[in-house]
Amino acid sequence: MTELLNNREYKKEQLKNLLKKIHEGEDVNKLKAEFKAALSSISPLEIPLIEQELVKEGISAKEIAKMCDIHVELFREAVSGTDELEEKDLPEGHPLRTLYEENKEIMKDAEMLNLYASTLVNTKDERMRKEILGVLEEIVGNLRKVGFTHYNREEMLTFPYIERRGLTAIATVLWTKHDEIRFMIKRLAELLAGREEMSWEEFVEKFKAKASETSFALSDMVFRENNIYYPTLKALLTEGEWKAIRQQEDEIGYYKVNPPMWDPGENVKPLHPWEIDPELSVEQLLELPKEVQQALKGQPLEFDKAELKREGDIDLGTGYVNVEELKAIFEALPVDVTFIDKDDRVRFFSPGERIFVRTPSVLGRPVQLCHPPKSVHIVNKILKAFKEGRKKEATFWIRMGPKYVYIKYVPLFDENGNYLGTLEMTMDIAEYKKIDGEKRLLDWRD
Amino acid sequence: MTELLNNREYKKEQLKNLLKKIHEGEDVNKLKAEFKAALSSISPLEIPLIEQELVKEGISAKEIAKMCDIHVELFREAVSGTDELEEKDLPEGHPLRTLYEENKEIMKDAEMLNLYASTLVNTKDERMRKEILGVLEEIVGNLRKVGFTHYNREEMLTFPYIERRGLTAIATVLWTKHDEIRFMIKRLAELLAGREEMSWEEFVEKFKAKASETSFALSDMVFRENNIYYPTLKALLTEGEWKAIRQQEDEIGYYKVNPPMWDPGENVKPLHPWEIDPELSVEQLLELPKEVQQALKGQPLEFDKAELKREGDIDLGTGYVNVEELKAIFEALPVDVTFIDKDDRVRFFSPGERIFVRTPSVLGRPVQLCHPPKSVHIVNKILKAFKEGRKKEATFWIRMGPKYVYIKYVPLFDENGNYLGTLEMTMDIAEYKKIDGEKRLLDWRD
Repeated sequence: MTELLNNREYKKEQLKNLLKKIHEGEDVNKLKAEFKAALSSISPLEIPLIEQELVKEGISAKEIAKMCDIHVELFREAVSGTDELEEKDLPEGHPLRTLYEENKEIMKDAEMLNLYASTLVNTKDERMRKEILGVLEEIVGNLRKVGFTHYNREEMLTFPYIERRGLTAIATVLWTKHDEIRFMIKRLAELLAGREEMSWEEFVEKFKAKASETSFALSDMVFRENNIYYPTLKALLTEGEWKAIRQQEDEIGYYKVNPPMWDPGENVKPLHPWEIDPELSVEQLLELPKEVQQALKGQPLEFDKAELKREGDIDLGTGYVNVEELKAIFEALPVDVTFIDKDDRVRFFSPGERIFVRTPSVLGRPVQLCHPPKSVHIVNKILKAFKEGRKKEATFWIRMGPKYVYIKYVPLFDENGNYLGTLEMTMDIAEYKKIDGEKRLLDWRD
Repeated sequence: MTELLNNREYKKEQLKNLLKKIHEGEDVNKLKAEFKAALSSISPLEIPLIEQELVKEGISAKEIAKMCDIHVELFREAVSGTDELEEKDLPEGHPLRTLYEENKEIMKDAEMLNLYASTLVNTKDERMRKEILGVLEEIVGNLRKVGFTHYNREEMLTFPYIERRGLTAIATVLWTKHDEIRFMIKRLAELLAGREEMSWEEFVEKFKAKASETSFALSDMVFRENNIYYPTLKALLTEGEWKAIRQQEDEIGYYKVNPPMWDPGENVKPLHPWEIDPELSVEQLLELPKEVQQALKGQPLEFDKAELKREGDIDLGTGYVNVEELKAIFEALPVDVTFIDKDDRVRFFSPGERIFVRTPSVLGRPVQLCHPPKSVHIVNKILKAFKEGRKKEATFWIRMGPKYVYIKYVPLFDENGNYLGTLEMTMDIAEYKKIDGEKRLLDWRD
């Protein structure tokens, strides 16, 4: 017993000294080897206890968190050697490499969540509890972003490619698990926010259980992705597909990484899901992870070969529609639009029932002649401010019987900043002003 | 004096008997000749006095209004013979004939306004005053519609044709006068609504003066239109132009008339302002009213020959835009749209900064695969209800940080009622909920 205590006492002293060095400004990376040595001899179960004592002795939870990073990294290195291999094969900025890198961060945060939740249970000191709660809030707050970034990129950018190839089941299973994890993290955040509503004992017990469950689910997902999903993507997706994915990733964002741009070469055309040949080659099949090969044996793959672009479609850059659909879209908008071109002439108005009636006779008419002579000078002032880039919008609102009409003018510019014209948008905002509370998709009733 | 009184007493008795017959349900038109005889011998100045006495004796103001109609008609017939001629030359439903017919109604109401305002001044009885005020409210309420219908059709449907031909000044002068009249009628309505805020004497004096001014301005406009503007239109506009106008008139509406459809023939192509040859022929010039010919002597006409349709423009039915403009329009909309086609596949989303990020990878993806597996059954239920025509929209609203996100799904159909797809519209309504009061064009500051 004395020996054990002495041993722990010794390790604690070691860690404390290292932490002090961090506190004094020394670079964590430089201390890594020393931390490694100190931590490697401590069992994961002991760490929370030591951390607790360190906090008691005045070392802040934030500094301990830095040590955790190192600990988790060591832990990860010990258990998984394969991920590293995969990752090193891929160039920096390659979307698959980014996914692996994010998974390291997720793993680290999942473990930190578990460690801190355990520490919290054993902490008696009020001030320390507060500090640990602060760290937990930060970890949970970060983890909420996993859903918006890492999972979201997988669901929106990679799933369509495997769906086209008939592997829809994999996408559905992963998405269901992602949503479970999103839900768990949300509940953790709510538990933290509502901790005053229950006794401390009730709270820490609940929190520890939920945190451990969430931590496990997150790690489990990392494992599934690293070992099954990512190898599947690696086997199936071509350079052109990865290039298209890379071009869209920034729009969604990342979890704690910041990948550089990556381009497999100018001669590689970005391939969108609707542009690929979804049939699997024998080579691709053989490269798939065993688990996926096994799953495919049961049922034949249904490739999705539906063509996106039809004869006569207009390419709008973000989709392909025909004139009939375009007309119907403009008619359905909750906003009436009228477009005047760069020469101030009315060029288009949206059809259908409108707040301010428009008839074809207005087409080609200079906008100055479409207004009561009394207000023409203001129309001209607004257009001048738009063309000179001095104003980005002009808004007005008037009551008209039961309608509350909101009018917005905005100048339109092309990609090179050339003035294309001005758009008038008119909408009745009366109904929006009455809206209250929430109504979600799952509240919908037939 | 006795003779005069007796005379008036006699006329009054005549009118009273006629009004009783109306009251008993006899057709006004059948009594027209008798009314004509009775009214023809009364000076316009006497009429308000007689009406006042009739009201005192229990005949309602509404019934007296019917007599007024006949009186005004007789008056109009006496002063203007030319309009009748013009009108008879035109087929029923011809837009120019409709304008003339509306002017008869406007003339009648303008005179009734003046007559009743005068009667009001001389009315002492409280109950009678109330009744006359009721009639005046109705007349003023009707006259407000002159601006939305008769003037609006002229401004929106006929002005573009004369503007193209360089007669912009005529359009501007008429529009300015229309707006003055609109303003006068609005003030009359406000005066009526706010009559409790001043003494009765102050109110009737003010009202009589304003009513007389408004009545005169309305009649004066009828005169200008009938004698100058309509003959100008008659000299210049071709059958094709009138056909195009007729096709758009119903959208705006009419003042107290209900013209039948009119079509100069299937072989006559409707001509929109941007499709005409704006140059005036010698024949057209000579047919113009003297006043317009005189005005044209001063300065050469500047024909507007700007072409509306450009190379590569998309014809949207209500205008011509190119792809670049379309993209900019969708980007500027205060609504994010996503369109799924009849096969439930995502076909288009609007570009730019969005509430819910969309990337090209979603194009062609079945909408069922774009939702968390948990809510797919609801997406399918909504689409089924749309396709079967059981629902016309599905709306949702959720709070997202500072945003209040309003989501609306609507099914789109083609002209034959075939399902084209469903449009998802997403907007942040937080800013609309904050809007209060009014901000009009004339309030704009540079």
